[in-house]
Amino acid sequence: MGSYRNRLEIIADILHVVSEEGVKKTQIMYQANLSYKLLTRYLAEVIETCLIHFEHKERLYMLTSKGKEFLEKYKDYSRRNKHVEKQLNNIRAKKRALDELCSNSQT
Amino acid sequence: MGSYRNRLEIIADILHVVSEEGVKKTQIMYQANLSYKLLTRYLAEVIETCLIHFEHKERLYMLTSKGKEFLEKYKDYSRRNKHVEKQLNNIRAKKRALDELCSNSQT
Repeated sequence: MGSYRNRLEIIADILHVVSEEGVKKTQIMYQANLSYKLLTRYLAEVIETCLIHFEHKERLYMLTSKGKEFLEKYKDYSRRNKHVEKQLNNIRAKKRALDELCSNSQT
Repeated sequence: MGSYRNRLEIIADILHVVSEEGVKKTQIMYQANLSYKLLTRYLAEVIETCLIHFEHKERLYMLTSKGKEFLEKYKDYSRRNKHVEKQLNNIRAKKRALDELCSNSQT
């Protein structure tokens, strides 16, 4: 939400752009909103960890089955994360109400 | 869970011991597991914030309606807190699995 993406989020964004049919590097760069330098570093990583396969002949980046697995797990993780974040905000509000009940600054 | 109680937890523990019928200071001290010094400080606070009423004649501490309200809200807060804590542990495990999928140290 407007903050810097962490490593996991960036990798998920890259994998999200890279389909099974394959895409070019520039396409990933624009759609995943990454600098050439950062993208190059991350692509090296996801290729080394077999999340993405590089098709040398056509210079296409393609999602592997491991990459697909990562994306599915990431989707679940991200959904749960958002859900818990909402609950945490709710709990923080409840804590503030309790803090007010036992503080002298009440009105 | 074996860690130090925070202010809210200590106040909830004190209020939990103090019933509407009234209890003596020593009883609170032992049941809430607090030193005399700490208890004296906290009792002054909860009396000032009207969570507990001190009956001077019989030297009894009694729960006020505001104290009851605090305890009810605290119960709800505490229950939700535990629930979210479990979910957070679950999410952390999922994050670790994702981290492993995109790290080189995999087996």
